[in-house]
Amino acid sequence: MNRLTVEEMAARFLACEDVHILIHQAPDGDCIGAGYSLQAVLRQLGKRAQVLCCDPIPPRFGFLLPEGEEETFEPQTVIAVDVADEKLFGRLADTYGGRVDLCVDHHISNKGYAKALLLESDASAACEVLYKVYRAMGVTFTEPIVKCLYTGMATDTGCFKFSNASASTHRAVADLMDLCPDIRYDLINRAMFDVKSPGRLRAEMAMLSHMEYHLDGRLTLIWATIDVMHENDVDEKDMEGLANLPLAPEGVEVGVTMREREPGVFKVSMRAAGDVDVSAICQTFGGGGHVKAAGCLLEGTQDDLRDRVIAAVRSAL
Amino acid sequence: MNRLTVEEMAARFLACEDVHILIHQAPDGDCIGAGYSLQAVLRQLGKRAQVLCCDPIPPRFGFLLPEGEEETFEPQTVIAVDVADEKLFGRLADTYGGRVDLCVDHHISNKGYAKALLLESDASAACEVLYKVYRAMGVTFTEPIVKCLYTGMATDTGCFKFSNASASTHRAVADLMDLCPDIRYDLINRAMFDVKSPGRLRAEMAMLSHMEYHLDGRLTLIWATIDVMHENDVDEKDMEGLANLPLAPEGVEVGVTMREREPGVFKVSMRAAGDVDVSAICQTFGGGGHVKAAGCLLEGTQDDLRDRVIAAVRSAL
Repeated sequence: MNRLTVEEMAARFLACEDVHILIHQAPDGDCIGAGYSLQAVLRQLGKRAQVLCCDPIPPRFGFLLPEGEEETFEPQTVIAVDVADEKLFGRLADTYGGRVDLCVDHHISNKGYAKALLLESDASAACEVLYKVYRAMGVTFTEPIVKCLYTGMATDTGCFKFSNASASTHRAVADLMDLCPDIRYDLINRAMFDVKSPGRLRAEMAMLSHMEYHLDGRLTLIWATIDVMHENDVDEKDMEGLANLPLAPEGVEVGVTMREREPGVFKVSMRAAGDVDVSAICQTFGGGGHVKAAGCLLEGTQDDLRDRVIAAVRSAL
Repeated sequence: MNRLTVEEMAARFLACEDVHILIHQAPDGDCIGAGYSLQAVLRQLGKRAQVLCCDPIPPRFGFLLPEGEEETFEPQTVIAVDVADEKLFGRLADTYGGRVDLCVDHHISNKGYAKALLLESDASAACEVLYKVYRAMGVTFTEPIVKCLYTGMATDTGCFKFSNASASTHRAVADLMDLCPDIRYDLINRAMFDVKSPGRLRAEMAMLSHMEYHLDGRLTLIWATIDVMHENDVDEKDMEGLANLPLAPEGVEVGVTMREREPGVFKVSMRAAGDVDVSAICQTFGGGGHVKAAGCLLEGTQDDLRDRVIAAVRSAL
C-alpha cells in the first residue's frame, strides 16, 4: 500500500477512467457526500463514474443524488471513499475485495487495503479531505458538489459541534459558502439534524423515558428494540442519528444506544462526551470507529448485553 | 445617531475610559460573550471596564466570567452590545436611558438609541462584529476573549445550523480556533447545546407529548406552563434554549413556545423553519427579533392566546 499526498491523489483522479466508487454499508452523510461529489467531479471531467453501495441510500439523502439513469460499465479504476475496511463493502466485498485502487479516508483505523491511500485522520470527514483534492484538481465547484461536501462535513461533526470540527473544517465550509452562496445550508441542516417523523418523536420519548443510568450516571443506555419501533410505528430508516440521544443528561461520559437489528442482535453505538476512547471499547467487541463515536455488533439477551457493556465501559473510565 | 465603521468603532474603543458595558435582559450567550469579551479587551488595555446586566448571568455561562471582584466606578463611557432597544436594559434603563455613547449590534431592529452605532445586520452575532473590531484594534486574543466570541457565535447560530451562519461566521471561527487551538470548543458546545438536567429532560418529554399541531401541521405550539415546570421540578434557568423544540416535526414552518413567566403572562418564542418572517409576526404583538427567531410577551388565558397566535401565524403563512 502506497500513501499519497493530496496532490498525488488529485493527479490519480485526473488520470483515471471508468470508475466504480465504493462507499460503506449503512451509508451516512459523509460517505454519500464523498461518493456522489466524486461521481460529479469525474463526470464533469467527461469520465464514466458510478457510486456503488450494498445498502440503499436513505431517502433523506436523496437531494444529494443526481437525476437520471445509473451507468453500467466494467470499471478500470475502483475508488473507495470513507471506508476504513473492505468488510464494510458488505456483499460488494465479494466483487471488490482486493481490487481497490485508490482510497480517500479520515478513519485512523483504515486497514490499508487499497493499492494507494490518502488518509488524513485529523480531518473531520472524508468530504473535508476530498475538498482539498478537488481544489488541487482545479474542479469547478457546482452546487451539487458543494451540497455533497457540506453535508458530509456537517453530518460527521454533528453540525460542527464535536471536537473534530477544526479550524480547517470551518475554513473549508467558509470557502464552499463563498463558492455557492445561494445554497440553503440552513435547510440542509434542518433536514439532517432537526426534522423528525411523528413516529420518531414518539419513539424517542419512549426510549428517553426508559433511559438507564449506570456507573453513577457516567454511562447512559437506551434501547431501540424491535418492540419500541413496532409500538411507535417507525422503521430502521426513521432511527438514524439516534446515537447522541443518551448524551443529553448532565454528567454522562459514555452514551450507548442499542438498536435491535433482528431479535437478539444489537447494533451498539457508543458516544463519548468526555475523554473516554469509545473506539477502544468497541474494538474489544470486534467493532471500531472514532475516539468519540464508535460502534459494534453484539448478540445476546438485553440482560446479558447490559452487563457486558457496563463492564467494558467501567474498565475504560 | 452616528453610524460608525468597524475601524471607527475600534478607534473609539481605544480612546474610551472608565467603561460601563450594558447587555440585554434575560442574557444569552451572544450578549454575555460580547460583554465579557469587551470587558477583557478594555482591561487588557489598562482601562477600567465593567459589564452590567439587570438579570443574573445564568450559571452555565459562568465559564465566560473572570475571577475576582467587580469594579465600582463612575462611567465616562457607556457601551451597549447586542442590545437593540434601551428598554431591554430592564431596570437599568432608568440609569442609562439616553446615556449610551457607543453601541455594537447585529439586530436590524436596532432603535438607534446610542450616540454612535456599529450595526452589521448580516452578522450572525454581536460577537462576530466585535471580532472584526478587536482585529482592527490589534487586540491580543487570549483564551477568555476567544471563548466569549466563539460562544456568542455558536449560540446565536444554533451551533452553525441556522441561515445566519455565513462564510464570514465560519471564517471568524476558523481564525479563533487557529489563535487558541487548545480551547475545548467541543465541551463548550456540549454545555451549550446538549446537556440537560434530569428535570429538563422530563419537562421536555411532558411538553412534547402535549405538543399542539395547528394549520395542517405548519404551526406547532408547546406550553411551558408554571404547572409543567413545577411538576418536573425545574425552574426558569433550566428552560433556556427551549424554543427550537417545536420545530422537530416534519413539515412545521413556525414553532412557538409559550413560557409562563407568571400566571397568565407568557413569553412567546417563535422560530421559523421555512421562509416565514416571525419577527414581523412578533412585531404585531409588540415584540421583535430576527426573521427566523423572534419573541414577544402576551397576557391572557391559554385558550385566548392560542387563538391569537394561530390567527397571526395564519395571516403570515
